[in-house]
Amino acid sequence: MEVMQILHMNNGVGETSYAQNSKVQRKIISIAKPIIHVAIQEILRSNNIESMGIADLGCSSGPNTLLLISEIMDVVLRAKSCNLGLQLSATTELRVFLNDLFSNDFNTIFMSLPAFYKKLKQEKGPELGSVFISATPGSFYGRLFPARSLHFVHSSSSLHWLSQVPPGLDSKAAGKALNKGKIYISKTSPQCVLDAYALQFHNDFSLFLKSRAEEMVGGGRMVLSLMGRPSYDPTTPASCYQWELLAHALMTLVSEGLIAEEKVDSFNAPYYAPCEEELSLALKNEGSFLMDSLEAFEIDWDDGGDQELHHTFDMVGSGQKVAKTIRAVVESMLESHFGKDIMDHLFQCYAELVSNHLSKSRTKYINLVLVIIKKD
Amino acid sequence: MEVMQILHMNNGVGETSYAQNSKVQRKIISIAKPIIHVAIQEILRSNNIESMGIADLGCSSGPNTLLLISEIMDVVLRAKSCNLGLQLSATTELRVFLNDLFSNDFNTIFMSLPAFYKKLKQEKGPELGSVFISATPGSFYGRLFPARSLHFVHSSSSLHWLSQVPPGLDSKAAGKALNKGKIYISKTSPQCVLDAYALQFHNDFSLFLKSRAEEMVGGGRMVLSLMGRPSYDPTTPASCYQWELLAHALMTLVSEGLIAEEKVDSFNAPYYAPCEEELSLALKNEGSFLMDSLEAFEIDWDDGGDQELHHTFDMVGSGQKVAKTIRAVVESMLESHFGKDIMDHLFQCYAELVSNHLSKSRTKYINLVLVIIKKD
Repeated sequence: MEVMQILHMNNGVGETSYAQNSKVQRKIISIAKPIIHVAIQEILRSNNIESMGIADLGCSSGPNTLLLISEIMDVVLRAKSCNLGLQLSATTELRVFLNDLFSNDFNTIFMSLPAFYKKLKQEKGPELGSVFISATPGSFYGRLFPARSLHFVHSSSSLHWLSQVPPGLDSKAAGKALNKGKIYISKTSPQCVLDAYALQFHNDFSLFLKSRAEEMVGGGRMVLSLMGRPSYDPTTPASCYQWELLAHALMTLVSEGLIAEEKVDSFNAPYYAPCEEELSLALKNEGSFLMDSLEAFEIDWDDGGDQELHHTFDMVGSGQKVAKTIRAVVESMLESHFGKDIMDHLFQCYAELVSNHLSKSRTKYINLVLVIIKKD
Repeated sequence: MEVMQILHMNNGVGETSYAQNSKVQRKIISIAKPIIHVAIQEILRSNNIESMGIADLGCSSGPNTLLLISEIMDVVLRAKSCNLGLQLSATTELRVFLNDLFSNDFNTIFMSLPAFYKKLKQEKGPELGSVFISATPGSFYGRLFPARSLHFVHSSSSLHWLSQVPPGLDSKAAGKALNKGKIYISKTSPQCVLDAYALQFHNDFSLFLKSRAEEMVGGGRMVLSLMGRPSYDPTTPASCYQWELLAHALMTLVSEGLIAEEKVDSFNAPYYAPCEEELSLALKNEGSFLMDSLEAFEIDWDDGGDQELHHTFDMVGSGQKVAKTIRAVVESMLESHFGKDIMDHLFQCYAELVSNHLSKSRTKYINLVLVIIKKD
């Protein structure tokens, strides 16, 4: 699977779109909001900035994309209006770069920009200054931006996606199915599967840091928010049980004769939920950044129902909600491997398994938010 | 009509797409190619550039979009490999910004970028250096980019599009149809129509220059290629006969009872083909640029058949060809005013009128290519 060409959140604004099913990710952004605020204030405090470079890596498409930009404008404007000793001129221009993979639905974002710019001007008035929004498609596991051009880098719900399925998991090369009946790390996975995933994450995250180190100015900050796990054990349910149930749903379709078992054996998700120690180690090894803070938050699988967005259709039941959220994220990959036809049935089956699971155990995601500072 | 939100070349890669029907525009780019080469060499000769900012304004979507970027890479690389006294370091990075209106199909461009980057690396080798391609949607009649960030600005087949239908043409405000049965300047148009168009172009082009003046570095150059006219008379066939025939086709549909005559009376194209004097005047008045050169080229209405691109379907007859080219460009506007249903019939009728016209007279487009230099 060519992750960089296939992976994208579901396009458009329809029922199975990411735009309609990204409340969990919105919740995660809202949790990180005060952390983002502090990080930007610190950047403005320590740098004399005429033109501030801001990148959102893995911006996706939907209401969350511009929400973040709006938050950032708020902080910058508040900093302009108060005299907090911040190094910010009234003419400071903001260069905002939206990034996601090549198949992300940028058209839908762009279509919403005229209304966004209009609202921005109305709400923030003339002191907003110049804001230039552009899109830079490509993998963040590599260079995306000119040298020393960025002051603030944000990434939410993206860095847990690997650049590729770990090559060590290739069943064909091994001559046998290494992760039989599973699609991510599971209690039954052999150690080689765990190791292959950990190694891929380490390599990817290190390359991410190296690339950003070249693109960021000294004193620049990153706020990175990604799925993680609360303990060193990668088989802990908080980090992998959503995949366990999805594998279960796929195996149900195998038992119904709808897909071949080998198809499931040969699929592994390009995903990894790291623990704090893994992040710290990669950061230390790469050497260009200092860790400022790292916090872990628990997120309900069916979270996000308490926020303001009004959708035109009603999500019935937690299982359905969770299935829709996961579908909007993973469908592009599953469809490319298993075919389009089984998707509805698969996610119906998954919704039932999730409902059943949540009635017995309130498994939660662990979301890690780290703030790191580019050394001078 | 909200031109900035409606106008876009036909999306996708299907039969009526701009991607499949933009050979005339490709021909125009190829004519400007040697001029682009010289302009870029001059920029490199007179500036010490670590990071070169390049913008293509009105990039559209299709094979032409990346063709231009490829041409530019060629010039820069040749400049790197020869020691022509050019101020170019081996590590010079290229920042390429693709611009078009918000409803342009950027997704299709982005999907073709992985193959484009791959080919670029294979063909140009490691000395290519860093190339960062991003998209900045918005109207070029206003600021798009940070201050003093661009060295080379290109725009082809775009600046003849106005920011709006000239307000002076509003039949409702005037209490009568000012440009009866026509959709652009025609031999029968009253002087007020000619004046309204000329004024709108002057205002738009002046704003274009003012915006770019802030964004470009001193010594930076623009190569602007747009439809124009060979004489001061704006009713000359070379500048308006394609619209005359389209109005004729629309009036045929009126006679068939398919659209209301008032609908035609109230539609005017947001387009203007200026003469050299109008361009020079706006340039002189704005004051930030020097004219380096201005050339006029004749382009056949059905040109572009002699180039390398292989399309899977065969265009039959010049009239059909011209109709497809025009449809790919103007359909978004016509559809929003007249409705989707009549489009096939309208362009069939148009194709016949064009065939008939071309059998009697080989009317050609006049394409103007100007090179202007930002003063220090």
